[in-house]
Amino acid sequence: MEQSKELNQKANLLRKWSLIATTEAGSGHPTSCMSAADFTAVLFDKYFTYDLSNPLNLYNDRFVLSKGHAAPLLYALFALSGAYPLEELKTLRKFGSKLEGHPVPNFKYTEAATGSLGQGLSVGAGLALISKREGLPNKTYVITGDGELAEGQIWEAANFAAHEKLDNLIAILDINRLAQSQETMFGHNIEKYINRFRAFDFEVIPIDGHNFEEIDTALAQATKNTSGKPVAIIAKTFKGKGVSFLENKDNWHGKALNKEELQKALAELGELDDNLRFDLRKPERSIFPADHTPTQNTDLSFDAGKEYATREVFGEVLVKLGEKNKDIYALDGDVMNSTFTEPFKKAYPERFVESYIAEQNMVSVAAGLSRLGKVPFVATFAAFLTRAADQIRMARVSEANIKFIGSHVGVSIGEDGPSQMGLEDVALFSALPDSIVLQPADAVSTAKLIPLIVTHKGFAYMRTLRPKTPLFYKNEEEFTIGGSKILRQSGNDQLTVVATGITVVEALKAADELQKENISIRVVDCYSIKPIDVTTLKKCLQETSKKILVTVEDHFEHGGMGDFAAAAIEGEDGMVIKMAVSKISQSGTKDQLMDDAGINAAHIISKVKQALT
Amino acid sequence: MEQSKELNQKANLLRKWSLIATTEAGSGHPTSCMSAADFTAVLFDKYFTYDLSNPLNLYNDRFVLSKGHAAPLLYALFALSGAYPLEELKTLRKFGSKLEGHPVPNFKYTEAATGSLGQGLSVGAGLALISKREGLPNKTYVITGDGELAEGQIWEAANFAAHEKLDNLIAILDINRLAQSQETMFGHNIEKYINRFRAFDFEVIPIDGHNFEEIDTALAQATKNTSGKPVAIIAKTFKGKGVSFLENKDNWHGKALNKEELQKALAELGELDDNLRFDLRKPERSIFPADHTPTQNTDLSFDAGKEYATREVFGEVLVKLGEKNKDIYALDGDVMNSTFTEPFKKAYPERFVESYIAEQNMVSVAAGLSRLGKVPFVATFAAFLTRAADQIRMARVSEANIKFIGSHVGVSIGEDGPSQMGLEDVALFSALPDSIVLQPADAVSTAKLIPLIVTHKGFAYMRTLRPKTPLFYKNEEEFTIGGSKILRQSGNDQLTVVATGITVVEALKAADELQKENISIRVVDCYSIKPIDVTTLKKCLQETSKKILVTVEDHFEHGGMGDFAAAAIEGEDGMVIKMAVSKISQSGTKDQLMDDAGINAAHIISKVKQALT
Repeated sequence: MEQSKELNQKANLLRKWSLIATTEAGSGHPTSCMSAADFTAVLFDKYFTYDLSNPLNLYNDRFVLSKGHAAPLLYALFALSGAYPLEELKTLRKFGSKLEGHPVPNFKYTEAATGSLGQGLSVGAGLALISKREGLPNKTYVITGDGELAEGQIWEAANFAAHEKLDNLIAILDINRLAQSQETMFGHNIEKYINRFRAFDFEVIPIDGHNFEEIDTALAQATKNTSGKPVAIIAKTFKGKGVSFLENKDNWHGKALNKEELQKALAELGELDDNLRFDLRKPERSIFPADHTPTQNTDLSFDAGKEYATREVFGEVLVKLGEKNKDIYALDGDVMNSTFTEPFKKAYPERFVESYIAEQNMVSVAAGLSRLGKVPFVATFAAFLTRAADQIRMARVSEANIKFIGSHVGVSIGEDGPSQMGLEDVALFSALPDSIVLQPADAVSTAKLIPLIVTHKGFAYMRTLRPKTPLFYKNEEEFTIGGSKILRQSGNDQLTVVATGITVVEALKAADELQKENISIRVVDCYSIKPIDVTTLKKCLQETSKKILVTVEDHFEHGGMGDFAAAAIEGEDGMVIKMAVSKISQSGTKDQLMDDAGINAAHIISKVKQALT
Repeated sequence: MEQSKELNQKANLLRKWSLIATTEAGSGHPTSCMSAADFTAVLFDKYFTYDLSNPLNLYNDRFVLSKGHAAPLLYALFALSGAYPLEELKTLRKFGSKLEGHPVPNFKYTEAATGSLGQGLSVGAGLALISKREGLPNKTYVITGDGELAEGQIWEAANFAAHEKLDNLIAILDINRLAQSQETMFGHNIEKYINRFRAFDFEVIPIDGHNFEEIDTALAQATKNTSGKPVAIIAKTFKGKGVSFLENKDNWHGKALNKEELQKALAELGELDDNLRFDLRKPERSIFPADHTPTQNTDLSFDAGKEYATREVFGEVLVKLGEKNKDIYALDGDVMNSTFTEPFKKAYPERFVESYIAEQNMVSVAAGLSRLGKVPFVATFAAFLTRAADQIRMARVSEANIKFIGSHVGVSIGEDGPSQMGLEDVALFSALPDSIVLQPADAVSTAKLIPLIVTHKGFAYMRTLRPKTPLFYKNEEEFTIGGSKILRQSGNDQLTVVATGITVVEALKAADELQKENISIRVVDCYSIKPIDVTTLKKCLQETSKKILVTVEDHFEHGGMGDFAAAAIEGEDGMVIKMAVSKISQSGTKDQLMDDAGINAAHIISKVKQALT
């Protein structure tokens, strides 16, 4: 009983400081913190094993706050564990503070940025997967809200966690009934959640989320779980629990108390000892993500007379790189025979993650892998990466180190039609700050660029091609992120065609045809879309008589390579003429569709002639 | 028995023509058609009620092929219903044919474009919702694959359909065990699907998907269903069923047979009478989407001295418009008190669709509504529209008439931090062909532009603002899609600042400050981002001494308004200097974050001065 009294004090300290922090900030979600205070107090008091001075110790338990708007609770939990003074919570949401409105990596104890809902269970599954595969004894705890259980990604993650038998993953569902604008779909009908998680093959433990004994029993059971099933502790709770005028009341979502209300609330919580602390259990061992051999070029070489599909080359390169660099993982969404991650799976099944047709979960799992020092390659059709646009966005906020590979880009995929064509992928990835976007046109450049994106820490996206293309480079050619190659040039070039990927083939055809009419043009292979090769593009402008760059790409116009080229020469004497896809395409052969989209050699020729008149 | 023999012939005709069509095309997914041939044959033979000459008759049953790669089956079903000659299937996947690799609206019997998996159940739920709310007697049938049941959106749709009590929705799940690259997660473990759909409150009917009697009994039960629950007929089937060397065999996904294999396969199917036809039951009545009063301006007026948040104005306007135009629907993802769709809900609950925190389903439901002539407004935080990027992409391929409203745009939302900031939404919507993208800066322009996007048939996206802004316009001012407004000008303007949304406020502040130093600049309110006002921007360039446009926006740089401005003046004498967000933001006040992002008045002033030196 004495123990329970102290626990109650600690839970109420979490409430107190969540309330103080949000009132100081003038905004935030105190009531969402209060529903989860009791079970997180028990978790930190008795179960959570963590070395505060080494967040990346692989023996640490992992704590993912999927309901990111309860950030003050997260900050209070670590303050009460001694990570920093409680007073620091008063900087909540203030400019420059580590304690942002929703958790970001600037707060070093967060495993991922959260705040876009429904992503935390996937991140947790990624963390738990590594522990499982590497035989680590730690547990991963994921706290979800109830509103966010409506997100489909939750069920992708649930399928994944059960399929991977992640019995080291413990989800605690904070069923506090109230969402932002109204009651959730199921309110306090706990059966609905029990049925769903049982059907998705979880070990389900329903509890009163404010009863310490039930919480303790559930956590004891969950931490001993070796059923092969992930655990869902379904906690019936009350939003605003502990303060009468907030508890289970409408219209208190995302609202801070004013000073007066705060005093009233604190009075209700009673006198609390601010010196109480969680005494986190230290992990038995300290091990850290291994520092693997930096990735070197592969020794792959290609035959000058042959044609290669860059997607196949990617597969080959990844196997090579994976041999020395054990951090490399591949994730695929049931298209490994199209993206060519299949050879990697065969070579290193222990580092392959089949994600089935669930791209959102795939990306957030990769964010979890990245947190633990892995270098995940996430591959699917470029079009289907858009399925995970929000997860990609959040992974970027998480500063995850993920390499995305999008196959089947553009209208040049042919007969499958517009649903399968990646035509906005460059716009999506390029909008994100500091992302790398590449599109090699041949085997050699593909093989040389992939090691570079492994070495580069951060977000990188590569478009790979379905059709085969000839070699444009000798095997010894070197490439750089931010580089380009001039493939045709003469002393009297009239303008420059800047191509990327499949359009390089067309641009070269066009140049050869034009040459027959004594029209010399320069052709640039813009394999690095972001960053773009500003120096070379400016140089081309200066060295051609017409000072025109004609950009041509198998992508929608806005947000594509052409916009980068325009930005590169902004302020220079010269102009960009953009050729890109401007309508929804259809079924047809590659050649028909490239012609229909106006991005083939014939169209380049007429555009060049038009520009020269 | 005679009947069953004929049915078997019809099912085999579906197989035969799926095989012929794909062999003629040289690509496609015949085996995915064959697993679904038996149950779709029974459906069309006995249950499906449809007026071929009037696909939009609201009394028609609806058929959604969620597994879009089985398109040849869809085309064969309608050919065997007499819609066009079977021979037309030989145009499958050919350039210019209506029979594309995956269904698109060019094929008038498809309810939506499919091919990105896991979206059809949501579209079907949208269709069924309208029938339910309008008291129509028809049924909506959705055929899903098993691989696509891994997509989270399926479970969003399942929750939605059960919550809305759509007992007129009948999903038939084609559990053929094999996905593209390997067996699905659950193979033929039918229990897994039964448990899941039961838990999600469906009426579940498991059957042998190749047993005509079981199929018939299931459909009879499903069509009589008045349980208040949607139905899931879970059909255990075999991929490639009917041809020994294809049936239940690996490595036949997405592969057409060669001519020899085709002959062998057709021989196995036996002699079939190509003259057999489904005799579709005609609906009892013919009614069509109503032709509602074209939307006029509202008579809303605003007080010159007051400030308004455009998100609130949007809410007010929508209520006004909804009064006369009964086609207008509003869909929201549990943020109606933030996006301000709440007043619409209160005024017209019968035309409000609470979608909870499940944005993917929300967008595809809207595509279903649009198909039936409704004008759905889909509203959530701009950042969370990216959650549905793939559904938005597919809705665009479907030629859906949807109006998207993104609130909480940019760093100016303040304390909540980067997870809640829409900073790539303009890139996302602008990449899509023929989309409209607007960002009004004040109440008057918001109120005038919303009626215009209702009248405009097609995709439109509007960013609304969280902070309040003053009025920049008189109530009688007029606006156009593709327009802009010059807010400051003089005879000796040195350059032009082009702003949009919240940055209009900053640009005007900057102009006033600069004027004090006798530096005159022009300020343009670029409320129409796509299409952008090329004429005005060119004119500004010509009329200012420095021929510079400084664009400033609360959005990431690439893919934003600045790129449109650059494209607008390409080839002109002059240049664009882009000011935009270039890094991940943080928590802070609106003013701190706009300063930190370099897009406030102070930054505009220094950028202008720098440009003028």
